[in-house]
Amino acid sequence: MVSEMLEEIKRTIMQRLPERVQVAKVEFEGPEVVIYTKNPEIITENGNLIRDIAKDIRKRIIIRSDRSVLMDPEKAIRKIHEIVPEEAKITNISFDDVTCEVIIEARKPGLVIGKYGSTSREIVKNTGWAPKILRTPPISSEIIERIRRTLRKNSKERKKILQQLGNRIHQKPKYDNDWARLTAMGGFREVGRSCLYLQTPNSRVLLDCGVNVAGGDDKNSYPYLNVPEFTLDSLDAVIITHAHLDHSGFLPYLYHYGYDGPVYCTAPTRDLMTLLQLDHIDIAHREDEPLPFNVKHVKKSVKHTITLDYGEVTDIAPDIRLTLHNAGHILGSAMAHLHIGDGQHNMVYTGDFKYEQSRLLEAAANRFPRIETLVMESTYGGHEDVQPSRNRAEKELVKTIYSTLRRGGKILIPVFAVGRAQELMIVLEEYIRTGIIDEVPVYIDGMIWEANAIHTARPEYLSKDLRDQIFHMGHNPFISDIFHKVNGMDERREIVEGEPSIILSTSGMLTGGNSLEYFKWLCEDPDNSLVFVGYQAEGSLGRRIQKGWKEIPLKDEDDKMRVYNVRMNIKTIEGFSGHSDRRQLMEYVKRISPKPEKILLCHGDNYKTLDLASSIYRTYRIETKTPLNLETVRIQ
Amino acid sequence: MVSEMLEEIKRTIMQRLPERVQVAKVEFEGPEVVIYTKNPEIITENGNLIRDIAKDIRKRIIIRSDRSVLMDPEKAIRKIHEIVPEEAKITNISFDDVTCEVIIEARKPGLVIGKYGSTSREIVKNTGWAPKILRTPPISSEIIERIRRTLRKNSKERKKILQQLGNRIHQKPKYDNDWARLTAMGGFREVGRSCLYLQTPNSRVLLDCGVNVAGGDDKNSYPYLNVPEFTLDSLDAVIITHAHLDHSGFLPYLYHYGYDGPVYCTAPTRDLMTLLQLDHIDIAHREDEPLPFNVKHVKKSVKHTITLDYGEVTDIAPDIRLTLHNAGHILGSAMAHLHIGDGQHNMVYTGDFKYEQSRLLEAAANRFPRIETLVMESTYGGHEDVQPSRNRAEKELVKTIYSTLRRGGKILIPVFAVGRAQELMIVLEEYIRTGIIDEVPVYIDGMIWEANAIHTARPEYLSKDLRDQIFHMGHNPFISDIFHKVNGMDERREIVEGEPSIILSTSGMLTGGNSLEYFKWLCEDPDNSLVFVGYQAEGSLGRRIQKGWKEIPLKDEDDKMRVYNVRMNIKTIEGFSGHSDRRQLMEYVKRISPKPEKILLCHGDNYKTLDLASSIYRTYRIETKTPLNLETVRIQ
Repeated sequence: MVSEMLEEIKRTIMQRLPERVQVAKVEFEGPEVVIYTKNPEIITENGNLIRDIAKDIRKRIIIRSDRSVLMDPEKAIRKIHEIVPEEAKITNISFDDVTCEVIIEARKPGLVIGKYGSTSREIVKNTGWAPKILRTPPISSEIIERIRRTLRKNSKERKKILQQLGNRIHQKPKYDNDWARLTAMGGFREVGRSCLYLQTPNSRVLLDCGVNVAGGDDKNSYPYLNVPEFTLDSLDAVIITHAHLDHSGFLPYLYHYGYDGPVYCTAPTRDLMTLLQLDHIDIAHREDEPLPFNVKHVKKSVKHTITLDYGEVTDIAPDIRLTLHNAGHILGSAMAHLHIGDGQHNMVYTGDFKYEQSRLLEAAANRFPRIETLVMESTYGGHEDVQPSRNRAEKELVKTIYSTLRRGGKILIPVFAVGRAQELMIVLEEYIRTGIIDEVPVYIDGMIWEANAIHTARPEYLSKDLRDQIFHMGHNPFISDIFHKVNGMDERREIVEGEPSIILSTSGMLTGGNSLEYFKWLCEDPDNSLVFVGYQAEGSLGRRIQKGWKEIPLKDEDDKMRVYNVRMNIKTIEGFSGHSDRRQLMEYVKRISPKPEKILLCHGDNYKTLDLASSIYRTYRIETKTPLNLETVRIQ
Repeated sequence: MVSEMLEEIKRTIMQRLPERVQVAKVEFEGPEVVIYTKNPEIITENGNLIRDIAKDIRKRIIIRSDRSVLMDPEKAIRKIHEIVPEEAKITNISFDDVTCEVIIEARKPGLVIGKYGSTSREIVKNTGWAPKILRTPPISSEIIERIRRTLRKNSKERKKILQQLGNRIHQKPKYDNDWARLTAMGGFREVGRSCLYLQTPNSRVLLDCGVNVAGGDDKNSYPYLNVPEFTLDSLDAVIITHAHLDHSGFLPYLYHYGYDGPVYCTAPTRDLMTLLQLDHIDIAHREDEPLPFNVKHVKKSVKHTITLDYGEVTDIAPDIRLTLHNAGHILGSAMAHLHIGDGQHNMVYTGDFKYEQSRLLEAAANRFPRIETLVMESTYGGHEDVQPSRNRAEKELVKTIYSTLRRGGKILIPVFAVGRAQELMIVLEEYIRTGIIDEVPVYIDGMIWEANAIHTARPEYLSKDLRDQIFHMGHNPFISDIFHKVNGMDERREIVEGEPSIILSTSGMLTGGNSLEYFKWLCEDPDNSLVFVGYQAEGSLGRRIQKGWKEIPLKDEDDKMRVYNVRMNIKTIEGFSGHSDRRQLMEYVKRISPKPEKILLCHGDNYKTLDLASSIYRTYRIETKTPLNLETVRIQ
């Protein structure tokens, strides 16, 4: 069956390529078609032709060189340095014997590619090696380096994984696609452990696989992977919509228990979720409550990840095509559009999304080729969940900072490492640059810095404004010198004893981490301010402080309890959320095009989910369901 | 685990039995505990003691004799004839070496049992054999004989089946029972192929497994057994609520594809469904459209059937107790009450039910120890589905028959073999006996007669009035001599050429069978009447005639088409249905005790299901769901 499809594709390719091109072989690698040729330069010179063929066979095509035409690596390196202008700032060149690619890392990858790919073509022509061009982030990222190293070292294994996957995807569907259904496996009528399971007669796909970090026992922390219809060996694909642990945190578990298939997500999601998963394992280890998986399984998941750009249509099963679209929630966050069967059904799973432009990101996509079923988050689905505008929120923040600095105080902002932290940095950078806030140091503590590095490595995922700033105006706010990375306790002590400043630190709810240390140092001085910009969960210290607690017993370094008297100024600023508020959710349903026939709501407290469902039905007359975890809804 | 539970039960039994009783062994056989003893007479003499122990261990107890105390069969037969009074009319005595039981078939089984079991005890005491007493039906039933023969012949295999089952049931539940859910596998938002799948963390139970005989292709005829959560090897039990093919017709398929577990149903359901399944195979064979199973699989299902009486509480899985209750639909029809876990959840699945007393049966049960979830049929759920009272329906019928006989005509009543036919017979017998209708012969053609035989074999399942008639007044209407069984074409021809008469014949919708033959003979004479008492499906000849078609082309015996001119009187009488009408459905929800928290509706056309759901919610404010096939609803 597979070879039949492959043979057909091969025939098409051979017919369409110029006669002098010598094709060594054609293979599937995951969803892609790879052509190995002795004349890679001829093919790459015919970019339009390849694009046309790809369009006709509805597959992405990768051109690789046959081993026989490869130049000796040392010579090739010299040649590449000759071809690529120095301003590209190449930082590393390595060779992948398995894929016959030369991996070129550069500060300005655009200059390695050249206008319309001219430089890149020059490299193929002169060295035989097909270049794979990666950005060297302006802030070095440990995680990205680790991931790149893992992929390089395991190139052979990865190729095997992709080939096996290619065979699986490119089968003809066995059964008629006369139904499709979704099982709620986690994160329905609740927030946390998001997990949705799509089944058709031909395939099984998991959308998100999160943990509820506040779940308490295992039963409430992890998705219901024990539903009778779910088995790891029949699973075709996992899609992760964004990196936060409540969407990605349980992924390594699947690999621990034998899953051997692909994960689809954007590149930033892969990078950020690897960061967060490793951190989660680390914290659990330190707290002596180990997770049911370890670093090995995170690595296995990296090896199985296929990254997709927004808008890239990809076959992920014999009867399912996936396209990711911007969700506006955090860097790389995506909505998943699934085209099922031969056009029988289309669904969009929003994941977490923000239907409003932020400093960091564009507003979530709302146009799709087709939609019958929309699965939508409802975090702020209650009718009272209306949030102030971004503009007003920023003004509030500036006001608080301004007056605190005025009286010589320091501002502590506890934040989550990924998303809110970067959003705030952009805001602070602008207000300081334009002189609205005095030029004080902004200290960045904890994992935020590493998350920044990942943001700087993927500028193409940022909002157009920010991209323009970075690429055209040569101004990358993340590497502004107002930001200072904090290293170690001594530096922290210096900061709190030093001049007025702004401190961004994890954890976001003062449940531990360095934000708690800063709090202890700063809380008894009424000149200082504590600013909450994110959600404070019930039970967290942040929540208690919001409620007005003034005497807080906390363990000190010497392990003794001490009561801290909160005298600092406490301020909560709403409007920085990465979620759509109630108005935006309702607006999204109104604006999404085309209109879905059915809406399922997830990712919201019980009451908020029901409240939103009833409003959507009453306002737009669209059937709106609110399944419980463990329930299955037929969508076709 | 099993032996642990068994050991505990054994200890309890040994402690409570009189010391002189020698217990050879104690075993599980399916849901029952079997005690083999060398002193069966001592135990049977202590009936109360056994009852008390059974109550304490929450198991049914069966006493059997140890092989060593058994009398020689020939001698035993003589002894039994001495002990049992001749009026009992023993028709057969056989011995089961495997269970050490003597099977005594008698016309009056009550007299073999004796007052408070005295005669039965006398048999044990004198012969060592424990008697199993069966009723010899006054009309001989081929099916019942076949089933009894199969069970006798396969006693050893059956014992093994039951022992294995016993071990499976009596395990301690492996997981916490923290959820339970139902998957709609057939017969939701439609009528036909009823199939409902209960899953808990510990067990899987199928409720009904029907076919849609009017489904057309396989895809619409059979339940969705291919849902990902369903596998035959993890299935613990099948429950069949009644014998009609839309509830039982696909059961043999399960055995064909490897199911090896039990079927629970009442004894009449077993007998009637065997009759209908065999007939279905037969018709399909004759029409050259064989079913995906055959007679062998019906036999296998008989060997795996465990019959339960109404009210008998039975363990069917480590965490599930089943109790069947009268459903009032046809003989042996049941509602299934399932007690899940340690009291965590209780559900009632009504199957098809009539919430009104009929001639044949009591009204459906409406009191249960507990109910959280009610799964209810909605055949007549539309607000317009109000049917005339039984009384008025009978009057209509009498009027039509009276006037037809008056003018010397014949009355043809096409009926389904099981249910409506017997109901009508009771009515006709009474009206003729009391002289309201002239004493004309009533001809019974087709499978009806065999179904009658099964009714006469199970009088304990009939309504109290009818039982009183049969047992106390010695008057069994089914064997009244106004009824004549029709054998062969010659007799049919004599009937249509003879004196005025009433003819009950299958099929019920004139889609074939002898009713069609009678129709051809009778339809052109305006003196005759055709009376519809049952539902005529769209597309059937019956439906077309109801609509007023007057010229009907039909194939004759010589295989040529001939146009028949319908001149006979056509009459449709509603109110004989075995289903609750709209008012009764609403009334049932009102009266059922205790009140369920959630209602799921099944077994109704899309519109009727939705209409009923909305009325129930509006009237009683009970959450009412209308799942689609393939959907899963969480009930706990």
